[in-house]
Amino acid sequence: MRPNKATHQQTKIHNRDLVLKTIFDHDTVSRAEVARLTKLTRATVSEIVAHLISEGLVEEVGYGSSIGGKSPILLSLAANSRYLIGLNLAQDKFIGAVVNLRGEIKDLVEFPIHNLDGEQALQLVYQILDQLITKGYHPLIGIGIGTPGLVNTREGVVVNAVNLDWQNLPLAGLLEAHYNLPVSILNDSQATAIGEYVYGNDHQTDRNLIVVNVKHGIGAGILINGRLFQGDGGGAGEIGHVVVREDGKLCRCGKYGCLETIASAHAVVLRYDEMIQANPAIYSSLKDTQIDLAAIETAFQQGDPLAKQVIYEAGAALGASIANLIGVLNIKKIVLTGDMARFGEPWRQFVQTAMMQSSFSRLAENTKLEIGALDFRACILGASACMLLDDYSLLFHLPTE
Amino acid sequence: MRPNKATHQQTKIHNRDLVLKTIFDHDTVSRAEVARLTKLTRATVSEIVAHLISEGLVEEVGYGSSIGGKSPILLSLAANSRYLIGLNLAQDKFIGAVVNLRGEIKDLVEFPIHNLDGEQALQLVYQILDQLITKGYHPLIGIGIGTPGLVNTREGVVVNAVNLDWQNLPLAGLLEAHYNLPVSILNDSQATAIGEYVYGNDHQTDRNLIVVNVKHGIGAGILINGRLFQGDGGGAGEIGHVVVREDGKLCRCGKYGCLETIASAHAVVLRYDEMIQANPAIYSSLKDTQIDLAAIETAFQQGDPLAKQVIYEAGAALGASIANLIGVLNIKKIVLTGDMARFGEPWRQFVQTAMMQSSFSRLAENTKLEIGALDFRACILGASACMLLDDYSLLFHLPTE
Repeated sequence: MRPNKATHQQTKIHNRDLVLKTIFDHDTVSRAEVARLTKLTRATVSEIVAHLISEGLVEEVGYGSSIGGKSPILLSLAANSRYLIGLNLAQDKFIGAVVNLRGEIKDLVEFPIHNLDGEQALQLVYQILDQLITKGYHPLIGIGIGTPGLVNTREGVVVNAVNLDWQNLPLAGLLEAHYNLPVSILNDSQATAIGEYVYGNDHQTDRNLIVVNVKHGIGAGILINGRLFQGDGGGAGEIGHVVVREDGKLCRCGKYGCLETIASAHAVVLRYDEMIQANPAIYSSLKDTQIDLAAIETAFQQGDPLAKQVIYEAGAALGASIANLIGVLNIKKIVLTGDMARFGEPWRQFVQTAMMQSSFSRLAENTKLEIGALDFRACILGASACMLLDDYSLLFHLPTE
Repeated sequence: MRPNKATHQQTKIHNRDLVLKTIFDHDTVSRAEVARLTKLTRATVSEIVAHLISEGLVEEVGYGSSIGGKSPILLSLAANSRYLIGLNLAQDKFIGAVVNLRGEIKDLVEFPIHNLDGEQALQLVYQILDQLITKGYHPLIGIGIGTPGLVNTREGVVVNAVNLDWQNLPLAGLLEAHYNLPVSILNDSQATAIGEYVYGNDHQTDRNLIVVNVKHGIGAGILINGRLFQGDGGGAGEIGHVVVREDGKLCRCGKYGCLETIASAHAVVLRYDEMIQANPAIYSSLKDTQIDLAAIETAFQQGDPLAKQVIYEAGAALGASIANLIGVLNIKKIVLTGDMARFGEPWRQFVQTAMMQSSFSRLAENTKLEIGALDFRACILGASACMLLDDYSLLFHLPTE
């Protein structure tokens, strides 16, 4: 049941958004085609399109082919008629970008971070936003931020982000007051999921999607019927801190044996180092090197058996956890993203094999596991797009300068 | 985005359903209160209520109290104005019932089953429905069935129910043709979840709910925003066949170490028997008894340490799996149902303790784990109610005789 009565005004907005979404979903489309797809009358479509053109959101871009009769005028979204800012507050660097309505990154800045306290992290966010705003893209209609940790999106509060030393930080409110723009805060894996869903490899045809983001930490983002599902407390997809090995290693969350302690990029670096220390006689191409993920990737590609072993173990643990995702949700498309995706198809296969072994076969057989298309950009694009996903009103009530 | 244009007719139906839902949700309610809750005008509410009364769905049942002025007439759902049939095809018996619009069971039949083949199981379904239909409750508006196994609800097909020997059985189509009534088929755990949601302990205030049904097998039903979530293939909630112990026992699904092999009622009986056989010297009150779940329950209540151990192990494995549910969905209310619920609060505590140990603390702390209110009736009520949950049109287009 929808919660409220339907009014004439709601119907008008609904139909406007329906037309706009149809134009969003096509490179170019004619009014007649829009009418056919939306089941609205030609007259209603023409009226709405006229409004969208007067708002500068839609353009006439040429003529389509015709089967006899007049060639139809083609409409297209005016990609650069509005801009959004997206931020990805990653473990090792903060990245910010100006994005247009087609999800094209127009400008990008990044700052490496190291041991920031909470106040420094917040100041860096202001600094990035200041820089991006002065780039002169106009009109800017909103700011979207993907951050690690637990987020209350509705209230715009970062409940707990250990790495950034943020507790109950009303980030959206602070930024809205400062910049006079709507601000949306999301968990970074949830933002990444929206990014892959909207701008990745044709996922929107499926309506349901799981994105598993394997970086320093591990989180998932879940889209159900085209909308991000955040759970009752914003923590849906927090699979990184489920205990998968009772006798496992201490996790930064205080428990032992969380998925993150085995399958994350951080765990892989620690484990590789540990194996070298414990077995000085064993062959490793990285014996005298500073070990980081890039170095392990090189070793892995050169056939280093120790690297292969570590990546295998990490992938297998992740696959077993993904079996749980399949059992719980039976969503048939699962996308892997994050730093660990650099280990590519071999890693995906380790994950897939373990996933199949631990899953109810009938469900797993119909599940497609693939690597994401957008790397770090998914989080930026998702954070900026999320404000528009359910509600196009931002496009119409432009901020005053 | 809603998928289709909004029309005047849709608005009318939407508003009618909104009024009806409001009356459903109250024992009694006045027209003025309905108008206040729905934000519809008094005139619209009066018009809709007149229609509902003429359809026999709503009754005027007396006068409410008034703060000065005329006492308002109270409206109530006419609980016995329509009937539904619900079936629960359980492991050891088939149960069928006639249910009214308030979820009250008016009549109930049950048949113990033992080693039925697929055709016999189907014939028994016909037999139960024949019996219930001849009880004379009128009008009957639909049949809902909860069955173990994987179900394609949209097509009304039981894809795979091992116990019943059904493969790709178009059960809804067969029954609709035979009885000329709409038929809905659901996985039994999904049906149970709907039953608990609609008729259990005030769960609807939460909109999201997980019900974990622990019987011969184990399955969950997930309600998201008040609607059953079935996943892409109908298998959402199939947590019983996720491998939780790689060196575990053979499961009926062909894998080893599925959750069902440790935490189900069936597993508990097998494990208890096995422990007695393996340790003849150990104390057990059931040494010379036929071991079934009822016997273990008695022993458990008498303090039999072996029974306690077995129930503890089963509960702990279930709790660890529920930690995964919390990590994936962060739904704050989880209800336990099924045969294992006979072990009551001690079992719930075993589950809860393991759940807390394996969960991300911040999410688990806000999760409430409780035992269901409706026992076997939840499946029957949910199966029958599911047809109405999203769409009240069944109430208005009555079957012709």
